[in-house]
Amino acid sequence: VIVYGRNPVRELLRGRRAHQLGRLWATSRAAREPWLAQAGPTVTTAAELEALCASDAHQGVAADAGPYCYAGSDELLATPEALIVVLDEVQDPQNLGAVCRSAESAGATGVVIPERRSADVTPAVCKASAGAVEHLAIARIGNVADFLRRARDAGCWSYGASARGGRPYDEIDYRGGVVLVLGAEGRGLRPLVARTCDELIVIPQRGQVGSLNVASAAAVLLYGVLHARKGLDRNP
Amino acid sequence: VIVYGRNPVRELLRGRRAHQLGRLWATSRAAREPWLAQAGPTVTTAAELEALCASDAHQGVAADAGPYCYAGSDELLATPEALIVVLDEVQDPQNLGAVCRSAESAGATGVVIPERRSADVTPAVCKASAGAVEHLAIARIGNVADFLRRARDAGCWSYGASARGGRPYDEIDYRGGVVLVLGAEGRGLRPLVARTCDELIVIPQRGQVGSLNVASAAAVLLYGVLHARKGLDRNP
Repeated sequence: VIVYGRNPVRELLRGRRAHQLGRLWATSRAAREPWLAQAGPTVTTAAELEALCASDAHQGVAADAGPYCYAGSDELLATPEALIVVLDEVQDPQNLGAVCRSAESAGATGVVIPERRSADVTPAVCKASAGAVEHLAIARIGNVADFLRRARDAGCWSYGASARGGRPYDEIDYRGGVVLVLGAEGRGLRPLVARTCDELIVIPQRGQVGSLNVASAAAVLLYGVLHARKGLDRNP
Repeated sequence: VIVYGRNPVRELLRGRRAHQLGRLWATSRAAREPWLAQAGPTVTTAAELEALCASDAHQGVAADAGPYCYAGSDELLATPEALIVVLDEVQDPQNLGAVCRSAESAGATGVVIPERRSADVTPAVCKASAGAVEHLAIARIGNVADFLRRARDAGCWSYGASARGGRPYDEIDYRGGVVLVLGAEGRGLRPLVARTCDELIVIPQRGQVGSLNVASAAAVLLYGVLHARKGLDRNP
């Protein structure tokens, strides 16, 4: 896999959790930047980079990274006070990348995506995440409802983000392991997934359009959990 | 201006706050959808729509909308308990659109953007906002620092989102009129703008990458304000 763009390649060099670094290429201009120069890239032209990446969004730098190394979902569930985001068939790479960036920023344990009908961690996702996927545990699972049952067995509580009603997300203390489940843009959670969640929660909508983008919703919920847990630390 | 895409055109038909509706076009397939059929679109081909919109993201529907009608910034400041988002030179239309969508969802009073070095409300912004810009007051200003001084005179308190430190955003009660100021991706607030804010606030970063996307940050702050104000209503 060819990872491209400044942030994705910089985080690949810093992280190496999720990708192995193979060859590194840069334009002569990009290769002069200190963080990149010390990694010793092969200098090439912008046109060759564009062909290599099959994208013009390379910003002068690309790396041969090998396949993305997914984490195990059991490992995520075994983390104490886990904070996990499950995306139910989110197919847009921009949205997957943006959710990963927010999850990494919030210090979440990881992100879980189904193997089918979901965006994978492609170079476009790396780019959209600003490289956050290099530092984040992302697990693939066969079936979302099964994962939620395993999460319950592991002592986590799952909260499905619903547009149709549920408890306001900011009235929950999020004690213990937390799994946040978000559905695809427009369609929301599938009925079986919604039924399998321990609780449905809602982000209050005060406008006409009636829904947040899935990445914005994930950010609001993740930071809602951090805020609530801060309260718990003070008043356990 | 030709507005295109399902959400933007649907909200244009529902809203008419910000755009005047001129002609409406749709492919024969899209024209069969009830919400669009009742508006009586002119049926055309996908290729003609693509040429009209200069984009292939039209989803079978486009409208001639006239120029976007901006709101006045004084009108925003005159709103009691105002909740205003100021974007300091955010140039990416996707980010501007996503911030507008979150602001509309959160019931914000409006969004303020500088006239120069900022994305305008173009059709790409309408699309990225899922049509939210049709229902949202957006004002253009000459100078961000001047606007923040006017906001102070109008009794609002301005909070600049900083990556370099400030008070945690979730430890503030957001009493009275609130202006949230966010800078461009990567660069952040310009120094004069940061100095003119009444207070700098920070969204805690617990990861390696070290910053949220500006649209995710705006969503976290907007819903942080709503949450804090809910507390005020209970314990005034």
